[in-house]
Amino acid sequence: MHNYRLQVSYDGSRYKGWQRLGQGESTVQGKIENVLAERLGKSVEVVGSGRTDAGVHALGQVANFKSEESLDCGELKTYLNRYLPDDIAVVSVEKAEEEFHARFHAKEKTYLYRIWNEEHPNPFLRKYTLHVEKKLDVARMKKAAKAFVGEHDFTAFANARSKSRTMVRNVYHVEFTEGKGLVEIRVRGDGFLHNMVRKMVGTLIEVGLGRMEPEEVPEILASLDRERSGPIAEACGLTLEKVGF
Amino acid sequence: MHNYRLQVSYDGSRYKGWQRLGQGESTVQGKIENVLAERLGKSVEVVGSGRTDAGVHALGQVANFKSEESLDCGELKTYLNRYLPDDIAVVSVEKAEEEFHARFHAKEKTYLYRIWNEEHPNPFLRKYTLHVEKKLDVARMKKAAKAFVGEHDFTAFANARSKSRTMVRNVYHVEFTEGKGLVEIRVRGDGFLHNMVRKMVGTLIEVGLGRMEPEEVPEILASLDRERSGPIAEACGLTLEKVGF
Repeated sequence: MHNYRLQVSYDGSRYKGWQRLGQGESTVQGKIENVLAERLGKSVEVVGSGRTDAGVHALGQVANFKSEESLDCGELKTYLNRYLPDDIAVVSVEKAEEEFHARFHAKEKTYLYRIWNEEHPNPFLRKYTLHVEKKLDVARMKKAAKAFVGEHDFTAFANARSKSRTMVRNVYHVEFTEGKGLVEIRVRGDGFLHNMVRKMVGTLIEVGLGRMEPEEVPEILASLDRERSGPIAEACGLTLEKVGF
Repeated sequence: MHNYRLQVSYDGSRYKGWQRLGQGESTVQGKIENVLAERLGKSVEVVGSGRTDAGVHALGQVANFKSEESLDCGELKTYLNRYLPDDIAVVSVEKAEEEFHARFHAKEKTYLYRIWNEEHPNPFLRKYTLHVEKKLDVARMKKAAKAFVGEHDFTAFANARSKSRTMVRNVYHVEFTEGKGLVEIRVRGDGFLHNMVRKMVGTLIEVGLGRMEPEEVPEILASLDRERSGPIAEACGLTLEKVGF
């Protein structure tokens, strides 16, 4: 069997997320599998490094699929980009080791959450940012974000439906970039619970707006009480930027 | 009469350009005039610094309108952004001198043309760039672009339907920025003929792809022959970035 590794970039606005769902549900995995099935003449499973939720974008999603037929990577990349919708792009296709598995072997992920923080809307970033009109106090947000770094039980920042073996995750860093009206929050870790990044960001925004104190965040984390953390920030602001193996 | 100056940013993708047209034609000027008419209870003309064509974007379009009623700038900005479609944003509203006229007093304009120059498409920039798959030789394009700088008769780079008093324009600079898969061309001048920036860029792309020599560009300019210049580059790559007064 030949194993191929894809890097995929997508505007998640009109998809119900990465993962294939039932008939008639538009997902990124589904779109790629359909085009590959046309090319290979048989159905194939494309394994992603992880799900992205409905409306979440990706710059560097990584996926793999297996094929009995040996394929030319350049030709396949061109084929996929020709037949995929224009909000999904295959950035690269490479031959992978036979045992490579995009989900099992993913060691770390970097998510980027982008906030448009001006009073007026931004027509060009309206689908790729959360619009927060009131000026955020980023110094307070940075202070609060320190609580997330390190190995913690993130139960308080998971979706209630999260059903992982363990709720412990290691967050390597939370970085802020400011400028040109944007506040960007980059979170890197060994993995994330369902809705974890968005709930972390939703909490940081509460802090940035003065509705919560930075000192409350470590307390909320320790409480394991998801009722105390902030809301799940909108999907459109979130991008899976990079997956490390 | 009170005179108000607006800075307007828009994603031109779904508009037939800036300038108001007949009934049922979606234009940026038309959208703004409709919302202002609602607010003021009477129709009003919004004067833009210049037309942008169908599909062309703007970051810093400047416009003005007159009102008998004295208006609160902050309140008006909020009102406009609330009722305008989300692909048009009013960045600022200021009181202007009574004689200020956005078109007559515009002294210079900066246009930005963005090219996505990677083999794979870019889902996030697909509406805001021209996709050129083959690698552009930017050094050749820079060499060719020197011909445009200065005061010239730009007949060879105008749309055939251009009907200006004079075809002479002064181009102050043509600047290139490269990186992250993008080639950006910034053109600043005292004014531009219809389609002039897009025809200049279309010609530079021919040079960048090796289909035309840099040395031909000054000859084409001198020839005043629009048959010899390159094609009009697609509207979606063009953004009116700034207007100087």
